Amino acid sequence: MKRFALLLGGPLLATEALKERLEGYRLLAADSGGRHALALGLTLELWLGDFDSSPPWLQEALSAPKEVLPREKDLTDGEALLRKALELGAEEVLLLGALGGRLDHTLVHLELAFLLAQKGVRVELTDGLTRAFPLLHGVHAFPLRPGAPFSLLPFPEATLGVEGARWDLPPTALKATSRTLENEALGPIRVRVEAGRALLYLF
Amino acid sequence: MKRFALLLGGPLLATEALKERLEGYRLLAADSGGRHALALGLTLELWLGDFDSSPPWLQEALSAPKEVLPREKDLTDGEALLRKALELGAEEVLLLGALGGRLDHTLVHLELAFLLAQKGVRVELTDGLTRAFPLLHGVHAFPLRPGAPFSLLPFPEATLGVEGARWDLPPTALKATSRTLENEALGPIRVRVEAGRALLYLF
Repeated sequence: MKRFALLLGGPLLATEALKERLEGYRLLAADSGGRHALALGLTLELWLGDFDSSPPWLQEALSAPKEVLPREKDLTDGEALLRKALELGAEEVLLLGALGGRLDHTLVHLELAFLLAQKGVRVELTDGLTRAFPLLHGVHAFPLRPGAPFSLLPFPEATLGVEGARWDLPPTALKATSRTLENEALGPIRVRVEAGRALLYLF
Repeated sequence: MKRFALLLGGPLLATEALKERLEGYRLLAADSGGRHALALGLTLELWLGDFDSSPPWLQEALSAPKEVLPREKDLTDGEALLRKALELGAEEVLLLGALGGRLDHTLVHLELAFLLAQKGVRVELTDGLTRAFPLLHGVHAFPLRPGAPFSLLPFPEATLGVEGARWDLPPTALKATSRTLENEALGPIRVRVEAGRALLYLF
């Protein structure tokens, strides 16, 4: 399994647990996402971007092979980095600093995560505290601990159900509702997506 | 025009400018969103919720007519509040504290905003700093000042174009791309949505 961790520009809680989890991952960063490599004390394989959001101190402090992109371009550095990971044959992608920053960036990261999922790549997005998983058609198992809170979101609409939760749900057509927010795992849960697509959010 | 400002649980920068803007709006709050009324020094017409996220000090400090919902229910307090505003005949809804908190809440607020837009209600979501507008089929004009940054997002896919910007775009089918992020207004802009739906984000 070719596993990549991509460091994006949003906030990230850099913990020892996260650092340990990243063993075995190839680490790439987009522009200001490079600062997370410093915080984690990890070495980057590649640092890519137009570097308009990386201050001089960061560029001096972080030694990594750089790929400099033009400033005026059709894609953000984050999207360019995802494409790079695909070129390198990524089969699993962990998007760090992908959630919770500017909303437009977060929404694009979610859409790009679905695009990766459609290509068969396993994807998770995180800010180091909360985690999001794009779910396409099928049954998806998550080994949650009892009591773990989670939300499911039709994204934007889906027929979906869940088993193993405090509030189980038979497959139901859902759209623009808060009905599937703030559930609680009794242990491992199984999410069934029968139509559309959904987002699992662990908080 | 029946204008409602709904105070939701996410973060809100409560400024004098926002307070002035709210003149002429009827003010309702959902649970912990009530704290924004305190910060703004404004009077609530209704405070609705199960009150599991409003601490005792807030409930003592804020005097407002309350509607207490059961704690175990299918909807969040925020969604219940939107329904209430619709019942009261809202034609324009400003969702305050709707962006930038927990991602699952933000995403539900966006979907509910589209639902309101489909009912012909004018909607804006804000955290007091950034603003989001759900855009359905048609041409949408926004009187932005020259130099104002904005992002447009297919949500999740759309054929859309923009005029009046540094990077104008003829109507183009877009999906899972960061291409329409981080544009700049030259003055008023016009966004054309030919298929699907889109989100305008001012930051």
